[in-house]
Amino acid sequence: MASEQNHLYMNPGQDKTSYARNSTLQKTEQDRMKPLIEDAITALCRVAAPQSMAIMDLGCSSGPNALTLTSATVDAIHRHCMKYAQTAPEICLFLNDLPYNDFNTVAKSLAEFKHCHDRSSHHVIVAGMIPGSFYERLVTSGSVHFVCSSYSLHWLSKAPEELAKRKIPMYDSDEHSRLLNSEIVANAYARQFRKDFTLFLSLRAEELVLGGRLVFSLLGRCSSNPASVCTQAWKLVAIALNDMALRVSLAYIE
Amino acid sequence: MASEQNHLYMNPGQDKTSYARNSTLQKTEQDRMKPLIEDAITALCRVAAPQSMAIMDLGCSSGPNALTLTSATVDAIHRHCMKYAQTAPEICLFLNDLPYNDFNTVAKSLAEFKHCHDRSSHHVIVAGMIPGSFYERLVTSGSVHFVCSSYSLHWLSKAPEELAKRKIPMYDSDEHSRLLNSEIVANAYARQFRKDFTLFLSLRAEELVLGGRLVFSLLGRCSSNPASVCTQAWKLVAIALNDMALRVSLAYIE
Repeated sequence: MASEQNHLYMNPGQDKTSYARNSTLQKTEQDRMKPLIEDAITALCRVAAPQSMAIMDLGCSSGPNALTLTSATVDAIHRHCMKYAQTAPEICLFLNDLPYNDFNTVAKSLAEFKHCHDRSSHHVIVAGMIPGSFYERLVTSGSVHFVCSSYSLHWLSKAPEELAKRKIPMYDSDEHSRLLNSEIVANAYARQFRKDFTLFLSLRAEELVLGGRLVFSLLGRCSSNPASVCTQAWKLVAIALNDMALRVSLAYIE
Repeated sequence: MASEQNHLYMNPGQDKTSYARNSTLQKTEQDRMKPLIEDAITALCRVAAPQSMAIMDLGCSSGPNALTLTSATVDAIHRHCMKYAQTAPEICLFLNDLPYNDFNTVAKSLAEFKHCHDRSSHHVIVAGMIPGSFYERLVTSGSVHFVCSSYSLHWLSKAPEELAKRKIPMYDSDEHSRLLNSEIVANAYARQFRKDFTLFLSLRAEELVLGGRLVFSLLGRCSSNPASVCTQAWKLVAIALNDMALRVSLAYIE
């Protein structure tokens, strides 16, 4: 795993710049995924729920959203089993993010979740945290029944090497160079995404049980023309990110 | 899980009072366990190593010792497979401790371990952290092949309730009361240990695969007479711990 990737993480803690207090957009997207999760669980447990089920959320981060998807999955399983009078399976939750994620906070959230669950139900729920990149193997072959991920797959494994080699920044502050290179940049990132996403799918295919399900959400746009949607806000983000990236590169060189 | 138990953890960080810099004794004991681990792995893989193996360390804490036992187990598996020309299994490591353990440090140690391993071997090794008490279920039924634990099982699930009810402290600073109650205290702790250990074994029996192995080390003494071994050092610890416990109790009451 590239060491730079290892060190990425959302702002920890609870203060006003923390991810925990700046993730309403992500929460909205997670809520939109709930019907898809419900459908996937119905399909998985159609005949009978397996004796035990492993559920994995990729890119859980920390804070109030960390358990939203896995908790929704647990609810969907229990609702399904109750509706069809099936025996509820033992459930194992895996929460994944990069190694520098705030796992101490996730551990406390899990303890709280299990404590609340144990008081209201006798079903076995166990939980673990898996530090690592989802562009690597995270669990053993055929050991997970359901994988979900919300707003995480836009994080690539690395910036396209071809741009680094040609010293073309993701966002050039010089407008002339930016327009000149815009197609090269867009294509390089598209290729990197295709490569990463193909790897992601092949890794999950190894990890999922036969008939397992994968549900994820991802930002995207229908047209290949960046100007086809409002990009003004993203320009500001791009300028800031590019500036930060340049400072880090300079710090490495110094 | 009792909330007080949830909040127990070793001193995090790297400074001179940290667990990481005060755990030489624990390291020595872990090293003494290595031949036992080797034997257990030989027995587990006698005919053929399973396709994938899950290994769990209970009470891993954080710092340099956190991965010693699981790392020794990985080495033992690979040595065995090489010796008998068996296909090495995919290995899943689970590191467990209470939810307030410093899992952020453990996650970084795991990333480092996996990085070193990936450079030297093509075998699949994945790893997770399981926050929770080993007096509760930690993984799903029949999902773990090997469980190890070093110097952790002396941590009981709670202080004996009968002593709390009778307001008898673990160590009474008044010598007369202490001598008067010493047998009551020793018996109460022995009963609590028996209860906890029985629960521990029944939980692990559910979690281990058929033929799975459990190796652990535990402080003990051959005689039932506390004075039969040097207890002077422990007296000092007992006084300090009892004083701390009283302060916490008072803080709760206030």
